[in-house]
Amino acid sequence: MSKAWWLVPAPQPDPAIREEALARQQQLTKPAGSLGQLEALAVQLAAIQGRAKPKVDHVWIGIFAGDHGVVAEGVSAYPQEVTGQMLHNFITGGAAISVLARHLSAQLDVVDLGTVSSVSLPGVRHLNLGPGTANFVQREALTPTQLESALSAGRDSVLRAKAAGAELFIGGEMGIGNTTSASAVACSLLNCPASALVGPGTGLDSEGVLHKAQVIERALQVHAAEAGNALGSLRALGGFEIAALVGAYLACAQEGVAALVDGFICSVAALVAVRLNPTARQALVFGHRGAEPGHRHVLEALQAEPLLELGLRLGEGSGAALAAPLLRMACELHNGMATFAEAAVADRPA
Amino acid sequence: MSKAWWLVPAPQPDPAIREEALARQQQLTKPAGSLGQLEALAVQLAAIQGRAKPKVDHVWIGIFAGDHGVVAEGVSAYPQEVTGQMLHNFITGGAAISVLARHLSAQLDVVDLGTVSSVSLPGVRHLNLGPGTANFVQREALTPTQLESALSAGRDSVLRAKAAGAELFIGGEMGIGNTTSASAVACSLLNCPASALVGPGTGLDSEGVLHKAQVIERALQVHAAEAGNALGSLRALGGFEIAALVGAYLACAQEGVAALVDGFICSVAALVAVRLNPTARQALVFGHRGAEPGHRHVLEALQAEPLLELGLRLGEGSGAALAAPLLRMACELHNGMATFAEAAVADRPA
Repeated sequence: MSKAWWLVPAPQPDPAIREEALARQQQLTKPAGSLGQLEALAVQLAAIQGRAKPKVDHVWIGIFAGDHGVVAEGVSAYPQEVTGQMLHNFITGGAAISVLARHLSAQLDVVDLGTVSSVSLPGVRHLNLGPGTANFVQREALTPTQLESALSAGRDSVLRAKAAGAELFIGGEMGIGNTTSASAVACSLLNCPASALVGPGTGLDSEGVLHKAQVIERALQVHAAEAGNALGSLRALGGFEIAALVGAYLACAQEGVAALVDGFICSVAALVAVRLNPTARQALVFGHRGAEPGHRHVLEALQAEPLLELGLRLGEGSGAALAAPLLRMACELHNGMATFAEAAVADRPA
Repeated sequence: MSKAWWLVPAPQPDPAIREEALARQQQLTKPAGSLGQLEALAVQLAAIQGRAKPKVDHVWIGIFAGDHGVVAEGVSAYPQEVTGQMLHNFITGGAAISVLARHLSAQLDVVDLGTVSSVSLPGVRHLNLGPGTANFVQREALTPTQLESALSAGRDSVLRAKAAGAELFIGGEMGIGNTTSASAVACSLLNCPASALVGPGTGLDSEGVLHKAQVIERALQVHAAEAGNALGSLRALGGFEIAALVGAYLACAQEGVAALVDGFICSVAALVAVRLNPTARQALVFGHRGAEPGHRHVLEALQAEPLLELGLRLGEGSGAALAAPLLRMACELHNGMATFAEAAVADRPA
């Protein structure tokens, strides 16, 4: 068998472009460094895109949905039918991410990898990998075939994005129970107890959080052999939509498309991607630090500095979408500000 | 003499509208509270604007410029001519705030209250209050007449904004030396030593910061009688552009226009406004927590929770402009998301 596509190293961002972009930042009519994180952001986008004047005009939002067998353990505040109901809400325009996509004039690509609902919705890509994952307290969540299909589904969305001319890929997720799955994967990769990472997700009370941590601890014991193994942990404890996000982030790096990472679940997918193939890191920009306590740990493991911290815990890609205007403005400032020479402004200390 | 306009209490935001907006947030297709700060933001904007579905389509950016006599003490990294040079850069479109104004389709209102430059620029309102303020180490920075004119200049910009249909007012400032002036005002109001508040501004080294703190300490001794007095501290230690911002924030509350506060200098102006007339607080939204160390103290005194923290230290209103899309999206989410009933999504815990 040929090497798996996800292990192929991404091409290095162009160091000459990075230098050119850095030099330009020093010449713009502002005190050096005064645009803070936005300066490094413009330089990073320039390097990823391979042009000294980067842009984020066209945004693609790939939303991946899947159901989770572990919901049978009573780990979510919402019934499992909500996953399918929200798919309908995404395409009819009433969900948060639908509103934000309109604001950004972004293309919404809704991919149902496998949910308990069998309703076929126009405008949704139904991949039918299964009626949700298996309950990972009992067995591996995904079969090897499901895992490979889900990874490819993520890449396929990125390839569609690139073909459509998108300069930024935002991944989003929907799946009742997926903070449990993402927490389990993160614990397995970071070698940390469930109690250190687990939080309320979309609305558990403290008793629910305790129960969720116990369920994850049981699963970590069952799948102890996968501890520290990125692909193994993803197969044993992950979800369809989480695997799709892993595939998407890897493909973004390989294809030179910047990826704006959303909240906790997306960040766990980013961690898996980077552990699997370290070159995935270079295309990632982090949208926000969310309310879920585990998010902080995962971001630290990725040495990520997110742009926003607004107490968000919605998912759907919403936190990344909220940060997208900052990327656009970082590019516009980088490209559109006058230099000291152009504006005849004194550029040195008195 | 009739009561000064700036002491007239602003009308209370409508409590019924606030309740209606809060109730709507609970019905939208998302877990309660999952949009974090953006939920309270939409409700605040609804209350300020007096409509259950607020909007921020039209943004007005008033930039106030002035020079500072205290620059004679060697407190800035840039020569004083930069104030006038940047005025030119604002109107020709090369400054950061010019780029951001284009991005937001915002109207830029550039007001020169009094600078050392005598060049008249088309597109700039030159008010000629004086060639900068007096050196406040020696005497009061502003005369009573200058103070009143500067306060009114801020209000006038807000009245123009309102007449033009703006739903959001952003105040910006330009003035070499104005972090020194703002720091002095904040120390006088917060009864705190200069060393606790003073930072590098746009680019001082550690020796420069130390010198700046010493200059401010001398000034605080000279004007010790004004400690804790909002109007007195502003007159003794402030600047033309800072006073204009004070007037603008007060007028925003009185006129029911939301004001998005920029960085350290704008936040000091907001503090003066609120100390002068506590009803000014209700119209204020805070754009960002900047890199200047004193900003944190001033925000705490205002019990403010800014939207962004990106290490910005540019001024010009740029940090507020960068946060403006978050206000727009908060409104669009509030107004445009489906309710659970509309979308037929299960809205209660399993």
